[in-house]
Amino acid sequence: MKILKYMLIFIPISFIGKFINVSPSIMFILSALSIVPLAGIMGEGTEEISFYSGPKVGGFLNGTFGNATELIISFFALKEGLFEVVKSSIAGAVIGNILLVLGASMLAGGLKHKTQSFNKKVVEVSSSMLLFSVIGLCIPALFTHTVDEALLNTRYEGLSIVVSIIMFVIYILSLVFSFYTHKDIYTFSDHEDGTAKWSLKKSITILVISTVLIAIESEFLVSGIDSITKTLGLSEFFVGIILIPIIGNAAEHSTSVVMALKNKMDVSLEIAIGSSLQIILFVAPILVFISLFFTPMSIIFNEFELIALIASVLIANRVANDGESNWLEGIQLLAVYFIIAASFFIL
Amino acid sequence: MKILKYMLIFIPISFIGKFINVSPSIMFILSALSIVPLAGIMGEGTEEISFYSGPKVGGFLNGTFGNATELIISFFALKEGLFEVVKSSIAGAVIGNILLVLGASMLAGGLKHKTQSFNKKVVEVSSSMLLFSVIGLCIPALFTHTVDEALLNTRYEGLSIVVSIIMFVIYILSLVFSFYTHKDIYTFSDHEDGTAKWSLKKSITILVISTVLIAIESEFLVSGIDSITKTLGLSEFFVGIILIPIIGNAAEHSTSVVMALKNKMDVSLEIAIGSSLQIILFVAPILVFISLFFTPMSIIFNEFELIALIASVLIANRVANDGESNWLEGIQLLAVYFIIAASFFIL
Amino acid sequence: MKILKYMLIFIPISFIGKFINVSPSIMFILSALSIVPLAGIMGEGTEEISFYSGPKVGGFLNGTFGNATELIISFFALKEGLFEVVKSSIAGAVIGNILLVLGASMLAGGLKHKTQSFNKKVVEVSSSMLLFSVIGLCIPALFTHTVDEALLNTRYEGLSIVVSIIMFVIYILSLVFSFYTHKDIYTFSDHEDGTAKWSLKKSITILVISTVLIAIESEFLVSGIDSITKTLGLSEFFVGIILIPIIGNAAEHSTSVVMALKNKMDVSLEIAIGSSLQIILFVAPILVFISLFFTPMSIIFNEFELIALIASVLIANRVANDGESNWLEGIQLLAVYFIIAASFFIL
Repeated sequence: MKILKYMLIFIPISFIGKFINVSPSIMFILSALSIVPLAGIMGEGTEEISFYSGPKVGGFLNGTFGNATELIISFFALKEGLFEVVKSSIAGAVIGNILLVLGASMLAGGLKHKTQSFNKKVVEVSSSMLLFSVIGLCIPALFTHTVDEALLNTRYEGLSIVVSIIMFVIYILSLVFSFYTHKDIYTFSDHEDGTAKWSLKKSITILVISTVLIAIESEFLVSGIDSITKTLGLSEFFVGIILIPIIGNAAEHSTSVVMALKNKMDVSLEIAIGSSLQIILFVAPILVFISLFFTPMSIIFNEFELIALIASVLIANRVANDGESNWLEGIQLLAVYFIIAASFFIL
Repeated sequence: MKILKYMLIFIPISFIGKFINVSPSIMFILSALSIVPLAGIMGEGTEEISFYSGPKVGGFLNGTFGNATELIISFFALKEGLFEVVKSSIAGAVIGNILLVLGASMLAGGLKHKTQSFNKKVVEVSSSMLLFSVIGLCIPALFTHTVDEALLNTRYEGLSIVVSIIMFVIYILSLVFSFYTHKDIYTFSDHEDGTAKWSLKKSITILVISTVLIAIESEFLVSGIDSITKTLGLSEFFVGIILIPIIGNAAEHSTSVVMALKNKMDVSLEIAIGSSLQIILFVAPILVFISLFFTPMSIIFNEFELIALIASVLIANRVANDGESNWLEGIQLLAVYFIIAASFFIL
Repeated sequence: MKILKYMLIFIPISFIGKFINVSPSIMFILSALSIVPLAGIMGEGTEEISFYSGPKVGGFLNGTFGNATELIISFFALKEGLFEVVKSSIAGAVIGNILLVLGASMLAGGLKHKTQSFNKKVVEVSSSMLLFSVIGLCIPALFTHTVDEALLNTRYEGLSIVVSIIMFVIYILSLVFSFYTHKDIYTFSDHEDGTAKWSLKKSITILVISTVLIAIESEFLVSGIDSITKTLGLSEFFVGIILIPIIGNAAEHSTSVVMALKNKMDVSLEIAIGSSLQIILFVAPILVFISLFFTPMSIIFNEFELIALIASVLIANRVANDGESNWLEGIQLLAVYFIIAASFFIL
């Protein structure tokens, strides 16, 4: 993880870049490289605070700040009216978590440990939740695509708000489930082993600074999207579904792989599936709510996003059901990810 | 369940309403309120008869009369040529059983008993059957929608009849499976505990009277559909997929919730999944056969119904696979149901 | 299996037919009847060679030659530019293996042995692989159908080649997985019991002769396709998806049923699912590579094939998950197959 620390050098470079007015495409790249380590530090800060807050508040903080980077980037994209980028980055985060992160973790862990097993029961609870949530989130879009494309994004904000409220309520209830009524099925293992590295004050300071820096870099990043898509001939859709999720989650991804190498496949799965759940139940509704202050955004995914989302969730459920993983399974998840990425790139 | 008994008052009210010629919309509401308790009494009558007939004939009676109310309502809708209502009420019954009934049962049972477990093996047999049956039933529709919409309902009666015959044969074979070749995996627990409340003669009389009354009220209900859709601005489709299944199955629904509260989650699941199977393998083909005496009805579902059906069945299979349920899972099923209902309402 | 031997008489008959210039439709039927026993003998020859080569090479040979007949027929169809036939026979082989072969095996085995159980763990590994592979293979097609139909088969060869290379690499890696890193989870039972019937020289001679004869008969078969479709009013699509897979796999099918009757359900499942995997990961990419020497063929399935493929794979995963089979499950798989075949026939 040391490489992440070295990447912090891109923060001053990006500021200098802004100052000397380099092209927006280069700003996109510099800010992307800055966000990766910042997201990692923000994650560490949250972890540290949980040592002081106790597992309940800590779990809540991790749950809520886990996708903060994604949320901040999407906020600025929303402000710019880049709805396609926002929606595709929601779908892309789920796809990336399940196929890329889990695939890489299973491959790395499987090469080292041959066959890795995990607690099927806990993983099945989250993967079922993910299936139900994604079906719920996708149903308005599935219905819409069979009606009349022309009506898209004009009449469906009402439905999007209803769905977002339902998702957000389920998010709140899932916190009640994890921290009150069924807390015994979860083990807050992460917070128990080891002691705090930083003082509470230092942790909070780091958290605040990294959040502010991520916000600044996200604004650089978003203002570069238009330019980078033109320069490299990419679509906004490709930037949203492939690039932004990788930038926002790279730190979390590396944690997942490290856990798999330590043969803690449960933690890897929890990161990948738990993070996807958070995106669907927390980030997506919050973005719809925020959009009401600018231009209302509907949560109607396009067909590409729907297919990729549903395929990913079916795969996650199949994986969870096995109770075991190996390197070949990892390769297969990665293969599906690359086929999706290649299709988006070519089409 | 006492409230159901009090609702019988709506039967004379509906007759008076008919006599004094109230508007068809009000007749729709009055007959709906009458059918709910009648369906419950018909179910009780069938149960009582099984005490005298022994488990085999009793199981068969329950299997066949379990969805009699639905069948009678659909019969009158068919006679009126309301094909959309008939087809959407078939899909709606399956969706309602899995999402609404099972969701409510899991929520109620889960709040009382924390985590409820059920016999995974039996439930997996039914949920597999449901998956295979729904795939079989939906394949002609899926193919049709990719060809040419204009041909719908004109050329596909032949295919519908073939599919209906296959479904009906599987229904007969599934009875052979349950009552002869594999009867040991099913326990006819309901009929063993307790004794008959009513004499055989009384049971038959009650069954006959309730059937006749349901038939009369169904005719009132169906003739009010046109008026209620116009008055409330609902679509026929919404009436078929949401309202009719609730009216026809309310009694059964309450039994499922009561069983969940008694921590008999197996029975709740058997009601929800078994009843869905009956709709697919028995009610749907019978309606196609009956339609041949009026205007032949094809069994080609529209895209909304297909999506909702397939989503429900995938969810049922996921739920069955867990072997356990809790209140959050119940909330999630209900959430998917409400999202589907809201989408149908808004779109 | 003796009936297969008697069918060899159709080889000289087909040669005479060719010589006296019978109609191409009759040549289609004669060559079809010749290929069935030849495919069986080729399979036997491969099995015999494995006795001499040891399990690793033997497993590889079985893996590679298992669908040789299918590959040879498709090769000639490819040469003739019958892309629709080639693609539909790929989809048809998977559908036939899972629904027809597995259905017939479960029905036959279930009638004799009531409930048959199998090693869930091994079957889940293959059925997961099948799910991931089919999703990977279908994603370009799913995306394509949502874009613009007019572009089909013109711009997507690039994407097809990428997907084919990925599939082929996974095929190679799956051999590494089965024969090196995870060989312990597979039991090479077939090769251990019994001794070689034929000498190595005889086995090789038989393999070579049967391959040559299959090649000749396949050319007869393919040149008859045009004529048979016109004479019987069938579509090329129907020939590809239903007839060719049955002709190419009849011998293998009968082995699967025989194994089920011997209560070796593991072997039946391995044949059906393993053979499907081979089609997706080996036969399909090889055909795309070969097509580059003639006219490049894209691997974009049509909607019918996609629906039938995805339905079959979901069913295979559900079946694998049960760990048990019975005659009713067999009937249900056959029912789905007949509904698919009837839909293709009627539409």
